[in-house]
Amino acid sequence: MSFEKLDAHNLKLASLDHALAILGADEATNMPTGGGEQRAEAMATLSAMRHKMASAPHVADWIGEAENEPLNQDQRTGLAEFKRQYLHLTALSPDFVQRRTQTTMRCEQLWRELRPSGNWKDFAPALEKVIVLVREEAALRASASGLAPYDAMMEQYDPGNRTIEIDPVFARLKAGLAEFLPEALAAQQKRLADRPLKPLNGPFAIEKQKALGLAAMEAVGFDFTHGRLDQSHHPFCGGVPTDVRMTTRYSTSDFLPGLMGVLHETGHAQYEQGLPRNDAHWPHNHARGMGMHESQSLFVEMQVARSPAFWRWAMGLVCEHLGKDMFAGWQVEDVLARVNMVKRGLVRVDADEVTYPMHVILRYEMERDLIAGTLKVADIPEVWDQKMNQYLSLSSKDNLADGPMQDVHWPAGLFGYFPSYSLGAMMAAQQWAALEKDLPDIERDIEVGDFSALNQWRREKIWISGARLSTPELMIAATGKPLDPDYFITHLKKRYLRS
Amino acid sequence: MSFEKLDAHNLKLASLDHALAILGADEATNMPTGGGEQRAEAMATLSAMRHKMASAPHVADWIGEAENEPLNQDQRTGLAEFKRQYLHLTALSPDFVQRRTQTTMRCEQLWRELRPSGNWKDFAPALEKVIVLVREEAALRASASGLAPYDAMMEQYDPGNRTIEIDPVFARLKAGLAEFLPEALAAQQKRLADRPLKPLNGPFAIEKQKALGLAAMEAVGFDFTHGRLDQSHHPFCGGVPTDVRMTTRYSTSDFLPGLMGVLHETGHAQYEQGLPRNDAHWPHNHARGMGMHESQSLFVEMQVARSPAFWRWAMGLVCEHLGKDMFAGWQVEDVLARVNMVKRGLVRVDADEVTYPMHVILRYEMERDLIAGTLKVADIPEVWDQKMNQYLSLSSKDNLADGPMQDVHWPAGLFGYFPSYSLGAMMAAQQWAALEKDLPDIERDIEVGDFSALNQWRREKIWISGARLSTPELMIAATGKPLDPDYFITHLKKRYLRS
Repeated sequence: MSFEKLDAHNLKLASLDHALAILGADEATNMPTGGGEQRAEAMATLSAMRHKMASAPHVADWIGEAENEPLNQDQRTGLAEFKRQYLHLTALSPDFVQRRTQTTMRCEQLWRELRPSGNWKDFAPALEKVIVLVREEAALRASASGLAPYDAMMEQYDPGNRTIEIDPVFARLKAGLAEFLPEALAAQQKRLADRPLKPLNGPFAIEKQKALGLAAMEAVGFDFTHGRLDQSHHPFCGGVPTDVRMTTRYSTSDFLPGLMGVLHETGHAQYEQGLPRNDAHWPHNHARGMGMHESQSLFVEMQVARSPAFWRWAMGLVCEHLGKDMFAGWQVEDVLARVNMVKRGLVRVDADEVTYPMHVILRYEMERDLIAGTLKVADIPEVWDQKMNQYLSLSSKDNLADGPMQDVHWPAGLFGYFPSYSLGAMMAAQQWAALEKDLPDIERDIEVGDFSALNQWRREKIWISGARLSTPELMIAATGKPLDPDYFITHLKKRYLRS
Repeated sequence: MSFEKLDAHNLKLASLDHALAILGADEATNMPTGGGEQRAEAMATLSAMRHKMASAPHVADWIGEAENEPLNQDQRTGLAEFKRQYLHLTALSPDFVQRRTQTTMRCEQLWRELRPSGNWKDFAPALEKVIVLVREEAALRASASGLAPYDAMMEQYDPGNRTIEIDPVFARLKAGLAEFLPEALAAQQKRLADRPLKPLNGPFAIEKQKALGLAAMEAVGFDFTHGRLDQSHHPFCGGVPTDVRMTTRYSTSDFLPGLMGVLHETGHAQYEQGLPRNDAHWPHNHARGMGMHESQSLFVEMQVARSPAFWRWAMGLVCEHLGKDMFAGWQVEDVLARVNMVKRGLVRVDADEVTYPMHVILRYEMERDLIAGTLKVADIPEVWDQKMNQYLSLSSKDNLADGPMQDVHWPAGLFGYFPSYSLGAMMAAQQWAALEKDLPDIERDIEVGDFSALNQWRREKIWISGARLSTPELMIAATGKPLDPDYFITHLKKRYLRS
């Protein structure tokens, strides 16, 4: 049976993915420097083998034949998701993929070289070449999928997301934030005047922070029989669902960024650990997509771990690991003032929960226009500066390094990816609202460090469904409603307009 | 060109080997328990992919075509070694490999279950089945290679080793040891009467032992930009030449087994790290074989790290890391009495340098006869006991668990492997003799912890030649002579008959 051939085929692909995931995690946490060149060669060779195997023409025949074989419902679902991914994978010819790889690699190298000095003039021609190819890519993906070009790009990261549905969501979010941001800043100023920020009594030893992070992960629900925590320069959540490799980094002057990082990645890890275990090599048992993944990390980080209820419990854990004396006289409100600090800035990755979506909306609007051809590369700095002024009252005119040159995404050819960050934040707020309705006592659970009901809800509503539904469908199934930005705005108001 | 196809083919195989090596090391050192099942599945799938790719029939066509292409000398050498390995790999049909895997897996499982109780009766029928298949395997390998059956089995581990050359070597070794062992034991008894063994003042903290091991590795020449040391239940040296993964285990009551283990594996690691870097994906740039590899670990452990010169330097290092007070009143001779202790015993893996070869010779003689069909499985316990009496004056009659049931090799179908252990020990002694001739000041170097000339000699004579020569050829190239057991006997006499 062709379905069985596809089953063996998926097992091979999953085994290569397993190897690549563990090799990647090992590289970031264990590999000695001199191992890098051979590692890169091995991983590139395995990736190319994987791509060739995954996109082989005979796979199309197997799919066609399997569609006419007697399959059960779950097999049909798996086959449909596999077919969707196969069509996307084969939308681009090997020649095109090679051209694109060369062009984006060159642009990424230039970006690394020129970003520090903000040298846009020498960078722009390389970016121009990338965008020409990305337009071509979007057209190819559109014709293979029957979607609009930008939708076809988004489909890679969040299946089912459509501009026509996201545009009004982002428009409402933008309007809401424009009104809300000044109010939040004013409320914060008043709170800080009444209750000045308490200084941190560092340094905080890394070993102690590590023990604190492990204790927090364990309490929140990370399964240490199926994963581990290591240290790396850039925190990530990698590995495979049965062996999740999470990393963080520590600063000795402030323990909060490290701890919040651990909790963010724990949210990602729980999603992976909670995926269906049977037929895990079939794509419908993988995580749904970027936005849903980000909703799970932000659920833990933003909805849970920056909330008053969480800190009523976590203060004790922090004191236990870092020392009670460090926090003499501290109250929950003193930590909240730190973890909920709002500050407008030019740099997306440094942004807080309130201003972050503005950075994403700016990029979403611009990359949509770049793909449509209505925005020219030469005009990027000016448009970026205008929008930055409009959305965050800041100017990037004299700081292109922290303006349109700050992200690796565009030089790397990743278009359609940015929306997922803020879609994830909105999804998380909406999931929290639904969960709170289903579990009215949830805050009391959190206050005593009991996350079992919370995780059970997430497991049943989201994790266990894998990639059986599209991103919008999964939101409806989990929360009863399509994505609605009001939940996020309401969440922000509750958190940031408190007195 | 077909040679280029083979080049790409070797790169793919090397990339899969890279992944399997790092996945294996990761499993032993980092993987959480729950990751085991998926890891096993992924590694089995990748191994099967590797085997299928490596033994594909079209590879034979590429070899034939490449032999008629204009190649330089190094390419010809690589092609010849690749062809040799391909013929060995394809000597067995996929059906046969599957039958053998099933049979040996079943026998290995039974062995794990029955070894503790020494239940030979229930174990023997499964071993019988393995030996029937191994005889078939030896015949298949013999007909593919034109070698005698047992030689064809050894060829997998030490290319070029032939019974006709090894038989007289082992006969001389056996005769030499039979005479020498009682002398060594008598001399030891006398030394210990004059100078009783000093007790160890443990416990030795694992962190301190680890720092000591790292310092010793670094001094002896391990390259930490291309490797690392971890902890595992069974010490090993794995990874890839640019990223060697070494492990050890520690006992808090005695630091010497851990340190000697580290130095043994360092010898293996240096061989890997010293292999040619260019075209590292071609098999003639890999290590020569089991025996030569063991010669490199035993060179460091036995020839160097259990010598008086080494300890005149290493005592200082040990005191620095474990504390001077621990060794108040100790002299070099007191450590040597411990690291050079001779003691007859039933168990091979616990044996010392002097008695170890007797364990190997016993197995070599028996497995040769098992393959020839002149020894029956039913007679193994009796023959084992006879030989044990003859070689080590011990009886295994009432302890089959530590008699013919002690090793995993036979249940796993590994025949032709045992000789390599003692061939390695003899090679190491002969290498040391040659090196001492070339570098008359070597002991003075070692006494001050300078291993640079020693390593340069090993690099030039052995490491850099990869697998360009057969095992016997490489010994002649490195030492000027074929393998001669007298070097080993002379080494033992010098070490163990000292007053």
